[in-house]
Order: sequence, then structure tokens, then C-alpha cells
Amino acid sequence: MIKVGIVGGTGYTGVELLRLLALHPEVSLHVITSRSEKGLAVSDMFPNLRGHVDLVFTEPDVETLASCDVVFFATPHTVAMALVPELISRGTRVIDLSADFRLKDAELWQQWYNMPHTCPELLEQAVYGLPEVNREQIKTAQLVAAPGCYPTATQLGFLPLLENDVIDTNTLIADTKSGVSGAGRKASIGALLAESSENMKAYAVAGHRHLPEIEQGLNLASKQAVDLTFVPHLTPMIRGIHATLYAKVTRDVDLQALFEQRYADEPFVDVLPAGSHPETRSVRGANMCRIAIHQPQGGDTVVILSVIDNLVKGASGQAIQCMNIMFGFEESLAINMIAAMP
Amino acid sequence: MIKVGIVGGTGYTGVELLRLLALHPEVSLHVITSRSEKGLAVSDMFPNLRGHVDLVFTEPDVETLASCDVVFFATPHTVAMALVPELISRGTRVIDLSADFRLKDAELWQQWYNMPHTCPELLEQAVYGLPEVNREQIKTAQLVAAPGCYPTATQLGFLPLLENDVIDTNTLIADTKSGVSGAGRKASIGALLAESSENMKAYAVAGHRHLPEIEQGLNLASKQAVDLTFVPHLTPMIRGIHATLYAKVTRDVDLQALFEQRYADEPFVDVLPAGSHPETRSVRGANMCRIAIHQPQGGDTVVILSVIDNLVKGASGQAIQCMNIMFGFEESLAINMIAAMP
Amino acid sequence: MIKVGIVGGTGYTGVELLRLLALHPEVSLHVITSRSEKGLAVSDMFPNLRGHVDLVFTEPDVETLASCDVVFFATPHTVAMALVPELISRGTRVIDLSADFRLKDAELWQQWYNMPHTCPELLEQAVYGLPEVNREQIKTAQLVAAPGCYPTATQLGFLPLLENDVIDTNTLIADTKSGVSGAGRKASIGALLAESSENMKAYAVAGHRHLPEIEQGLNLASKQAVDLTFVPHLTPMIRGIHATLYAKVTRDVDLQALFEQRYADEPFVDVLPAGSHPETRSVRGANMCRIAIHQPQGGDTVVILSVIDNLVKGASGQAIQCMNIMFGFEESLAINMIAAMP
Amino acid sequence: MIKVGIVGGTGYTGVELLRLLALHPEVSLHVITSRSEKGLAVSDMFPNLRGHVDLVFTEPDVETLASCDVVFFATPHTVAMALVPELISRGTRVIDLSADFRLKDAELWQQWYNMPHTCPELLEQAVYGLPEVNREQIKTAQLVAAPGCYPTATQLGFLPLLENDVIDTNTLIADTKSGVSGAGRKASIGALLAESSENMKAYAVAGHRHLPEIEQGLNLASKQAVDLTFVPHLTPMIRGIHATLYAKVTRDVDLQALFEQRYADEPFVDVLPAGSHPETRSVRGANMCRIAIHQPQGGDTVVILSVIDNLVKGASGQAIQCMNIMFGFEESLAINMIAAMP
Repeated sequence: MIKVGIVGGTGYTGVELLRLLALHPEVSLHVITSRSEKGLAVSDMFPNLRGHVDLVFTEPDVETLASCDVVFFATPHTVAMALVPELISRGTRVIDLSADFRLKDAELWQQWYNMPHTCPELLEQAVYGLPEVNREQIKTAQLVAAPGCYPTATQLGFLPLLENDVIDTNTLIADTKSGVSGAGRKASIGALLAESSENMKAYAVAGHRHLPEIEQGLNLASKQAVDLTFVPHLTPMIRGIHATLYAKVTRDVDLQALFEQRYADEPFVDVLPAGSHPETRSVRGANMCRIAIHQPQGGDTVVILSVIDNLVKGASGQAIQCMNIMFGFEESLAINMIAAMP
Repeated sequence: MIKVGIVGGTGYTGVELLRLLALHPEVSLHVITSRSEKGLAVSDMFPNLRGHVDLVFTEPDVETLASCDVVFFATPHTVAMALVPELISRGTRVIDLSADFRLKDAELWQQWYNMPHTCPELLEQAVYGLPEVNREQIKTAQLVAAPGCYPTATQLGFLPLLENDVIDTNTLIADTKSGVSGAGRKASIGALLAESSENMKAYAVAGHRHLPEIEQGLNLASKQAVDLTFVPHLTPMIRGIHATLYAKVTRDVDLQALFEQRYADEPFVDVLPAGSHPETRSVRGANMCRIAIHQPQGGDTVVILSVIDNLVKGASGQAIQCMNIMFGFEESLAINMIAAMP
Repeated sequence: MIKVGIVGGTGYTGVELLRLLALHPEVSLHVITSRSEKGLAVSDMFPNLRGHVDLVFTEPDVETLASCDVVFFATPHTVAMALVPELISRGTRVIDLSADFRLKDAELWQQWYNMPHTCPELLEQAVYGLPEVNREQIKTAQLVAAPGCYPTATQLGFLPLLENDVIDTNTLIADTKSGVSGAGRKASIGALLAESSENMKAYAVAGHRHLPEIEQGLNLASKQAVDLTFVPHLTPMIRGIHATLYAKVTRDVDLQALFEQRYADEPFVDVLPAGSHPETRSVRGANMCRIAIHQPQGGDTVVILSVIDNLVKGASGQAIQCMNIMFGFEESLAINMIAAMP
Repeated sequence: MIKVGIVGGTGYTGVELLRLLALHPEVSLHVITSRSEKGLAVSDMFPNLRGHVDLVFTEPDVETLASCDVVFFATPHTVAMALVPELISRGTRVIDLSADFRLKDAELWQQWYNMPHTCPELLEQAVYGLPEVNREQIKTAQLVAAPGCYPTATQLGFLPLLENDVIDTNTLIADTKSGVSGAGRKASIGALLAESSENMKAYAVAGHRHLPEIEQGLNLASKQAVDLTFVPHLTPMIRGIHATLYAKVTRDVDLQALFEQRYADEPFVDVLPAGSHPETRSVRGANMCRIAIHQPQGGDTVVILSVIDNLVKGASGQAIQCMNIMFGFEESLAINMIAAMP
């Protein structure tokens, strides 16, 4: 049984952590913080948790957090940066779901987030929390940077191709579609049901903050430098990411077999039979990435379809997967849920 | 560990049974039948079950079914009627999610279903599977008739008022709103997204088959005969029932306290604080009924808001709750899930 | 050709006025104001208007507004109150889509809006803009208070019953369901797609500001004082109101005929054949109220189903209907659109 | 005033033709056929048309159809093929919204539709009804093949690039997203709200019937043979197509200017300012294609965003645009609607 703290529990990744951790048999929820909501019972804000979580939001307090075995940050960027160094120095392990420790290059971080990084020395130490790539390092990590949602779906789809050097790295395109929960639990006109239902649109085509994270991951897997065109879209649904990935194939290989071998032992990556079209609803609420491989019309363009739930395998579920690895629990403990269909 | 069979596993209550039973620690899924899909792997039809259920649909076979400890019927009406008598006679316990054994009066059944009941002698023996009313009888029942979705939400909302004789039984109105999964997994134009999204409508105002079931349950709880106006509506969402219930109060009582006492020990009925408005999403995917009590403007009309997930507390979850009771398992075993929000 | 001004054009009723007025052959759009967006081209905010509206938002200016033949207020309450007296005094006619002039009783207004009314002397002069009730007065009105969305659907459904004294006025219930555009174009967490999609809930059961407006209208039509229970619900769709109305019938009359006669000459009220269930999508984008009448199970409870588009017959379309009446245009000019199905 | 007939009026393109033609000042709706629904009033099937269309569905009859000035076919493929030759021979003009006359190559047609074409001699004569390409030929055409929805959005997005030879024709990708009304008004499980809401998926990645139509159009505009990867997706909304188009740019040109010039005189193509992200809802119900041009990160990949309403500019609206051109009416007559937002 470990003591767990959550900083920033009022957003969507926060409540999703709570949903999953509340039923985790090795976890004792110790503290959940929210400056704006201190004093409020968590279950008053999220009635789905009534009867399961009896914590009250409190102001962040380093002493209390440092007394935990692990602290999750489910905060906007810059919050973790400010608290993590001290927690780390006191021996508390940290899983950061924000963007603060995902990039290795402090200058690149500054360029995309418009401010200097305040603890660049931790960037190298931080382990990027994609178990399918970094399982060994995660085991002993003191600081895990949980991947973003688009980066998870995109990297899991491209990795086998890049690791095996079978595509032209100048031709990568990621056309990604996300449910609106990806925008977070923030009041904004654009995310109103009246504005975003019955509607599709691309956004941030000029440059999205997940682009450098994805490129970093792809470049680590590739011998050649990767040039990626990344176009995210807003989709009229709550949860789900559908990444449709394109590249020119350079060698004649059995791509289906290549993916099946790459992910044969992965509990949370499911390579579908050839010819399949994964649906986002098949992973809704579940910590799973489903992938299908196509070569339309027998041409030289490979099309990878990769779906996840942005709040689970794309955020909180994957963070708990990392926690399970870090603390030696069974990797799928408490995150082996089945998506509800319909 | 008990052996479980499912007859008719291709509909929404069938796949929901599978989602819940696949993770039930005391259940061994033994057989699932579908005449039309025999030979198909269950997880080929429902990819959310990949890695969790490896059964193949088979044709219904009495021998195989009779070898189970319990058989669920997730079928259209009349299917259970044809098979249940033999299963019962061979000692297999049955939980029927269809309408075949919900009504006690065979003539009433014939009137609403336009055909004679073929085993009226079982109607009396069948236990109506609403644990909040019939927990003791369910324990020893050989045949449980799991309630319909509207009847569950409506009865749980009206029962405390009728049992305590505090409303005029001639003034009951149930204005109910259902997600479209209530119509089942059947190809129909009216349930297409293109037809039922961005739309609200009432239906079957002249008479819905859940009306006699609700009236039967309410009359059992009431000293006075109950006159109910029942108006169901189709709502542009997948899951969820919101029952808005009205009646004239005849006595000055603390209705909030009355509900809290009635359901104090119920694991799956949650009476919200006074002034609350339960949301269907707070129970989506969960075996829970949340209820709030209002008396607008201090008048003599009581308004009860009662929400469930039609496929869980309104069908498969409640059926498993009955199974847990029947076999002496902890009542909440494997159905204590938390709704995902958002 | 008349000169038209709009105060407060950035909300949903504002853009809907623009959509309809831009194609009105007798209207010249002269000015549209928005303090917060001054200088912005209207079509930059609402790209559906590109090529149709080339106005730019300007700060409200009395001189410019007073130079119009008619000014629409599509503003939150209290804005119209502040400007209308001067416009009226200078001969400009006003159609107010806000709540400022709907109630006749200044004290009642104060009670529901928590502030004193600043021009109570105009309350009596203002004509309530429900053409089906006040067509004659609208013709010559200088100030029209356009009805709210719930009040339109509810009054049109109850009026024939009350005018003909066929129901018990102590038994009225209006169970109403609205699309989320009714909450306006305001950033709020509750109206996010991620919060309000796949969800139903009641709200403001204790008391909604449309209640006194509805009661006022019903009482004017009724010999007996009306006691109404009004329960609004939020529905996961953009547009549409479905009012389900209940009352006890006191006399044996042909209700279908009564409604057909009452609305025989009304261009924008459509009484459906007996047994019908109107769908909100059948009026989406159209200035139409469709109504069906039921007496379930032959009992003494009448159920009226009344649907409108909250932004058209429930707001901007009805306001233009009033304008057409006021200026002697054909009543259906430019608002005779057909709903798009699907 | 021309006499208009519609064959196959029970599908979504049929009802959309009715919605638009009912208000067309130069059109007299003469006949609408449906074998399955003969005798039914059109407005009983589509209540949005109550008060606007009083036709009754009749069986197709060549005499009646031949007495029309123009006949629209809103039918599944092969229906038009069977009737068109006789209508053409009797001087009736035909606008076919189905796929029967879109391809010029009868063998290609046979390959994709799995049956021989029964009047290949008409394929050459048929004019492909994309006014932005074939306006002159449409004027005098006796047989117009109205383009499919994906082909309209995709071709309008790629044409300026191909006509000006600025992209590598081996690198074209069309990642397209469609609302479910594109699947037609047919009972099918996959298109149920319960199956397709809260869900995204690709489909027909191996080959979709719109692929040869798009390739034919692109090749006509291009000096080099075009190699297109076409991946359609099903999106949880009723209407709308969002085409996201990719290609490698081969020359340094001002793409924004190129598009603006190409479509400067087009009434129904709107090139948005640089940096824009068109939304499908901005064209919902409207006969409009909105396009934006991007070159992310200043790279050599151009990204075109092209949106239409699949039932309007992608089907019935465009068909009426062709009719207006054929009969010398103002091109935008009766199809100059403004999309409703929200």
C-alpha cells in the first residue's frame, strides 16, 4: 500500500486519476490539492466519486506532499516545475502529467512555452513515461514525465516503422482527431457543446505544442532525422484520439508482422488483424491503444490507424501504468478495464 | 466460481453482461449463444472485449445451458419463455433480462405483447429482480425477472412516497428521457445518428410496454390504487435514463429524510443532498441510481429526479447484482465501478 | 426598406437575427453594436455570414441607434432598460429579446432579477410579442418584449386549454427540455461539450426566471388562477425545445379540434394529426411551433407535446415575425424557412 | 417556371432537394417517386416539409417524368442507368445525383461497382456537374452527373495546385472526415447513434468508390498522373465533410494568392484568410465550400483544409446550382442560404 498525492485535482486528468486510483488495491489516496477549491469535497465537484472518494481539496503543502510515496501532477504547465525539485530532493517520486518535463531540450521548451524552464537540470533525469519504450528506466525513475495524448497515439503508431527503418523519414504525416476533453476542463466558448457539436475543424496547423514532443520521440527511434507534418482536429465527441498516420514505405516488408512482433508482449497495445479499422469507442475509458496497418491499393504509402482514450492511455491510465511499474506492482493492476460499448 | 451462460449475446444488454462478468472473480463464462452469429468470436463483434473474452457464439443448446449454474437471457421477449421451463426443471437458475416474466398477470401480459404467455405457471414463481424491494426472495429464487430500465428509475423514485402514503395516487406522472441504446442493437432508421442526434421527441405516449410493469410495482407498494401517466422520450445520447416524477403531496413530511432513511443501507441507490440535480453521466457505466427530491416554490407538488444507466442499473448491472445475491457473493462484487466523467 | 439596428450582436440570438435579417428583402442592416468586439468584422466572428453581412461591430451610440426604424436588443437583461426609454422617446421602435419588459409587474421583476426595474413606467406600454395572442397590439407597438423560449413553447401548448376552460388550473406541469444554446454564448464549464454531451439533467427546479413570465401569460388566458410546476432540463443538443405539458381535463371535449381551430389561421403554429409525436429537428432553424395532443390510456390527463427552435420561434424568428407585423410586411416574409432534415 | 421531377425522394439527398426546391421561385415540383412509399404524403415522411410540399410519392412512370423539364435522380446506383436513356431521348434533361454517370470509363465503373454499365454510350455525353470546372458545358448539358461529396471537397481543394503544377503528384493524400448522413437513410447498425456517436473511425481504407471519381477529376486538371491516398473517416455528426489534403510543394509560389485568384468569381467557394481553420458548421445547410491553405512550420508540405455540407454543396445544393446554370437562372437562386450557427 503506497501513499499517493495529487496536485491539481480539478481537471479532467485529475478526476480520471481519482476514478482509477480509488479502486486500486495498493493505493491509499492521501491528499489532493486545489488552490481554488480548497475545502470542497472532491465528490461535490465530481458526483461520480460519491461513495468512493471522501477526500477534500486542500491547498498544496510541500510537507504533506513530501510524505507521499508518489505525487501526480495533473496541472497546467509550470506548476510542476515549481514544486518538483523539492519533492525530488526529499525522496518523493513524481509522475508529472503536464508538459514540464517531456522535452529534453530546455531551449526547445522555452521556444514552445514562451518562458524559460526553471529546472532544466531535471530534464535529463526525467524519464519519458512511455512504457513501450522506456519500461526499464521507469522502474527506477524518480521523476516520470507522462506523455501527451497525441504523442502517445502517434508514437505507438510510427515506432515500429522507424525502429525498423522501413519508411522515408521525410514523408511523415500525422492527421489526428481528438475529442474535446483534450482541451481540458476550462470555460471556453470554442469548447461549448453549442460550438463544437455537429462540427469538425482542424486547429493549430501552424504548430501545436505536441509537435516537438512527438518529433523528439520519433527521432530517438529513427536513424534518420524525422520530418513530421502534424495536423490536429477537434472532433464532436468527449473522449478519444484517432491518429491516422502516413508515410512512404521504402522497403518491402510484412508490416503487419512487424507490428505484431513489436507489441507482442505489450499489455496495452493491441494490433488488430489486417484490414481492421479501430474505433475510438473500443478503448473509451480503457488503458489501451489499438492499431491497424494498411497499404491502400497496394501502393507505397502505409496508413497506420491508432486509437486511444486521451484521458486514459493518453494521460491518467498511462501515468498509473508507470506507477505500477515504478512500485513493482503488476503492470495492469487496476487499469485493466474494459471499454463500455455502446 | 460459478458457471455462467448467456442466451442472446449480440445485443446491448448482452455485451454489457460480458463487460461486467469478464472481470467478475467468481464467474466462469461458459457459453454464449446467438443463432445468427454462431461461429463468430465474441470479440470480433465487440472489439472492446479483445483480450478479455475468448468465447465464440454458439447455437443455443439446452444441454450446455443446463450445465451452467445460472443462465442470463438477454433476448427479445418470447425467447426466454420457450427455454426457461426446461432449464428451471433441471435445476439451472435463470435471470431473464427480457419482459417475459416481469408481469404477474398472464392476461395483462397477453394484452401488451399481443400473444398468449406460454408458461403462465412460472409468472407467480418468478421473483421481480429489484433488490431494493425483493432482496430476500432473490436470495433463493430460481427464476429472476430483471426489471426494465424505465421501471427501475421510476419505481425507485416513487417507492418511498407510496410506501409512506404521502402522495395522492391519482396524480402520478413519470416524464422519462432515455438514451437511444434503450432501443437495442437493431438496424432501424429512427435510431440512426442522422435521425436521432440533435433531436428530442416523445414516443409511445398512447402506451408503452413498461407502463404495466411500473404500475404493478407501484401498486404493490401502495395502499391506494395508482394511476400513472407515463411519457417516455428519446434523447440524443447513448446511455442514461432521467426520470422526472411528479405527484401531489398529501401530508407535510420531511421528504428528504424519508428518502434517505428508505435507502440508507442500499449500496446502489444514492440520495443526493437537498437541492441537487443528478446528471445521467454521473452514473454512466455504473450500477447506481441517484435521486434528488424537490418541492418547487414550496407548493404541494413533489418532483423526484431519478437517474440510472439504462444498460447497467437498468439492465445488466442489476441482473448481476441479483446474481451476487442469489449465490451469496458480496452484493457489489464486480459491479462497484465508478462512472467515467467526463 | 427599413433601417435596422441590433444592440448586442455577439450572442446566439444576435447571430440568428443576422442570419435571418441578412436575407430579408425589406431590411437594411444599419448598425450592430458590441462594446467588447468593436472594430471586429461581424463575419470574422461568425464565418457563416461571410459574403452576406459586411458590418463591423461598433460601440453602442444613441444617435446611430435612434436613426434606425427599429432596434433589436439581443442583450443580457438590464441593457435594454438603460437605452430603451431614450430610443422610444425619439420615435425609434424597439424589439427587446431580453427579459427586461416581459413582466408587467415591476415588483415581480425585481424579485426574480434581484434589482429594481429602472423604467417600470414602460412595462405597461410594452407589448408582449407573442403574435398568436397579441397580433393587433403588436401592429402599433412602439416597444415589443419578445417572449422567452420556454414561455413560447409552453404558452402555445397550454393556451387553447385555458382559454376554453377545460383543465383544472391547479394541475399544470411543464416538463421542458432545451438544447444548450439556450444557455447563451458564454464560456461556462457546465455547457462544455465534455460536460453536457452524453448527459441529461434537470436544473433550476427550485425556480427558473421563465416561470413568472409563463404564469403571467397563462393567467391572462385563464379564468382561474393558474398553478404551474415548471421543470427545465438540459439536453445534449444545440437547438430545440421540447415542452411536455400535463394537466387534468375537467370536461369532455374534442381537444384535437379545439387546438386545430385555435391555430387554424396561424402561419407558425402547426397542429399535428392526432397520435403524432413532434420532433424538435422538424423545426430546427425554422420559425415554427409544432404541437400534438394526447390523452394516454383514455384517462383524464391531457399531454401536450410542443416543440420549437429556441433561437427561432423561441427568440429571433419570433422577433422578426413581430417586426413584420409592426411594419406591415407579410408576416412570414424572410422567416418562412424549412427545417433541414436530417 | 420549370416542371421538376424527382426519382427516389425518400433518401437524404431527396429530402434535401425538396427543402431547397420548395422555395425556388422558378420551380414547380411536379412529381416525386418512390416505389416503396407510393401513396404516402411526402410531408408525412418528412414533417419539416409540412405546409411547403403537398406532393404524394408515386411509382416511377416514364410518361410523367418525361413531361418534366428536368428530372433529378436521388437514387442508389443503377436506378438512373435504367431510366435515363429514355428520358434523354425524349428531350427531358437529367441531373443524376448517383454514381451512374460520374466516371468516363465504363470498365473502371464496372470494376468498382461489380456489374456492367448498361448505357456506356452516355458516359461521354454526361457532363460532370462541378460548376467550378465545367460551367460552360453544364449550360447546355442534357445529362449532368452531380459529383459525390468527398470528390467535391477534395477536388476543390486540390485543383488550384494541380492546374498550376506546383505539387508533386505522387504525394497526394486526402484524409477526409464525414458526418454519418453520408451513409444515407438506410437502416444499418453501424450508423445507429448508439454505435457512431462518441466515436471516430476510418473506413474503406482499402478502397472507397469515390476514389476513382476523385482521381479522374484530378488527372484532368494535372499534367502529371496523380497518385492519391484517400482515407475516409466516419465522424459523430450528422452533416459535414472536412477534407484535410496534403501534398509536397515543388515550387515556391504564393499559394494563398493562387487559391484566391482561382476562385475569385466563384459564388460558392470561399477562400479564407491565411491562417484560418474552416469549420464544417460554417457551411451546414449552405451551398458553400470554404477553404484554407497552410504550410506548417514553413516546410514543403502544403495542407489544404476544405469543408462542405455533404448534402448541399456535396449533393443536392450543387445539383440545383447545375439546374440554375442549365436553365439560365441566376446561379445562386434559392441556394444562397446562410448556415445556421450555432
